Amino acid sequence: MSRYWSKLVDDLDPYVPGEQPQDQQYIKLNTNESPYPPAPAVEQAIGNFTVDRLRRYPDPLSTELVTALADYHGLDPTQVFVGNGSDEVLAHAFQAFFKQDEPILFPDISYSFYPVYCRLYQIEFRQVALDDAFRIDLDGYRGANGGIIIPNPNAPTGIALKLAEIRALLADNPESVIIIDEAYVDFGTESASQLIAEFDNLLVVQTYSKSRNLAGLRLGYALGHAHLIEGLQRVKNSFNSYPIDCLTDAIGVAALADESYFQQCNRQVIANRERLSADLADLGFEVFPSSANFVFVRHPDRAAETLYLELKSAGILVRYFRAARIDNCLRITVGTEGECDALIDALKTILD
Amino acid sequence: MSRYWSKLVDDLDPYVPGEQPQDQQYIKLNTNESPYPPAPAVEQAIGNFTVDRLRRYPDPLSTELVTALADYHGLDPTQVFVGNGSDEVLAHAFQAFFKQDEPILFPDISYSFYPVYCRLYQIEFRQVALDDAFRIDLDGYRGANGGIIIPNPNAPTGIALKLAEIRALLADNPESVIIIDEAYVDFGTESASQLIAEFDNLLVVQTYSKSRNLAGLRLGYALGHAHLIEGLQRVKNSFNSYPIDCLTDAIGVAALADESYFQQCNRQVIANRERLSADLADLGFEVFPSSANFVFVRHPDRAAETLYLELKSAGILVRYFRAARIDNCLRITVGTEGECDALIDALKTILD
Repeated sequence: MSRYWSKLVDDLDPYVPGEQPQDQQYIKLNTNESPYPPAPAVEQAIGNFTVDRLRRYPDPLSTELVTALADYHGLDPTQVFVGNGSDEVLAHAFQAFFKQDEPILFPDISYSFYPVYCRLYQIEFRQVALDDAFRIDLDGYRGANGGIIIPNPNAPTGIALKLAEIRALLADNPESVIIIDEAYVDFGTESASQLIAEFDNLLVVQTYSKSRNLAGLRLGYALGHAHLIEGLQRVKNSFNSYPIDCLTDAIGVAALADESYFQQCNRQVIANRERLSADLADLGFEVFPSSANFVFVRHPDRAAETLYLELKSAGILVRYFRAARIDNCLRITVGTEGECDALIDALKTILD
Repeated sequence: MSRYWSKLVDDLDPYVPGEQPQDQQYIKLNTNESPYPPAPAVEQAIGNFTVDRLRRYPDPLSTELVTALADYHGLDPTQVFVGNGSDEVLAHAFQAFFKQDEPILFPDISYSFYPVYCRLYQIEFRQVALDDAFRIDLDGYRGANGGIIIPNPNAPTGIALKLAEIRALLADNPESVIIIDEAYVDFGTESASQLIAEFDNLLVVQTYSKSRNLAGLRLGYALGHAHLIEGLQRVKNSFNSYPIDCLTDAIGVAALADESYFQQCNRQVIANRERLSADLADLGFEVFPSSANFVFVRHPDRAAETLYLELKSAGILVRYFRAARIDNCLRITVGTEGECDALIDALKTILD
């Protein structure tokens, strides 16, 4: 605390990301990164990049990248907004749409950045409880609200809503902006982006961090009706005119081009997830049905915090949340087959 | 305007950056980019970059880069904050320090992003008039205020304050945060960073965009007392945990290593500036004394807007501001010797 800070800074409760040790001593299953390298086209884009371009500012509109994303998703470039990671896109969206008279709604167990944004922008919010099986209860999202944000699949549970359920949520809430945060959608969930033509209050947010194996690149985007994208641009252009650097623009375009590598990696992650889920169940874990690149589990006899610490001692990082209702759960990123095997072996030793 | 926008979005007046045509048909002297390529070490850093690192999140603290910047400036790592361009650093600083009971102060002719940030964060401000020679009048910065931000040298005038004047400004205002925005400091002005030990309310902001020839990289930073840096980190960690991508981190470190190339480029820009200033004076322009990588000029007989348009027709972009007091001035980036010659030749033709 400092007398020089704006008053709101004292009240912030900043997001704490998963550990990012910069040495390579851990098997890292704690921040939902891909176990597979970026697409070969990414390496080519970096190799072919004309370094002299870096002395010029980037295109403030990221026209090439926005056009490539629009083409990829079957939308118009006016329906695409890009940002420095989906965290930045979400931050702008909270400020652009969620400062309303009514509180916004999101699940009580969800991406823990949402309440952080609310404090930063002084937005009222109400958390809607998941049911006992950690499923989203859509009945809780009816009635006046200043907006709704739901990750699909949800994090850290991994449980997905069906497209028909998203459509019902949109139909129930025509007066406020509904953000579907699809960070993990490519691991087996239908995207709500196909509902954009039908609902002008829908914003879909996606990221290159997970299914495109590019967490280190910081690139995310929003898809929605042009007037929502314009709202995001007005905020962005009041914050940072050039959010995406030239190299990231070029890599972002390249990564979209290799659809077959993209599908292959995601299929492999899904296969690894199903095997890991079965192996964890065999060890006595309750495994929630995941549609993401992680599994959410708890053990009837072992405290999650203890397991987290014992795994860390064994050289394996997983994510433990000291938070209500989930403080006996672990979120485990799906690694390579070898990493998953190492996790299972370590757990066998710990549980014995 | 949209019924889905937060109310504040209607009131925003977003910053409009200089034109960034993506083809190469113009001699581009409008956005104060360097006419020289990034340091050779930058190309090496990109060539040597291990692409697989991109699948992992970056170090959220950018430890290596922060440490390199601290070493470079003779400070402790706790006194350095990095962001996605100095625009982002400034935006966070406005929110972290300038939401106060009293209005903040900045010059009436200055970086036009400052009032934009104020609208975004609903910060009251009062603009202090430059004198008739476009110099900052420090007498206007006494008395109660919520903070002060001054670019040094100022933009778009290019006129610098002396270190003793900055010290007097700090001594006059111990109760509020003083930000010295040093985007152009390396072209001949003493940095206020050497006053950080003396004044715990001083924040110095610098950028890789100008003197490090890396506008396309999006990298800027703040230097100041650890409690100011902590305030910035609290805001940043409530907005975007990982603002700097892995490649930018690596390039940022590499660019600092080649001091001799850095000094050589800046000396050349200064030499070009002095020659350009003399040539423009010979053509009858009033040339304000610049300590930046641009010159600010006006012609007694020719309207600036007309000159801007005629230069654009001749394939040369310069910056024209349709703003009070400076709507008859042009801001011209210092290019290579050849680019400066082409500008002078084009102006000769236009003025004949």
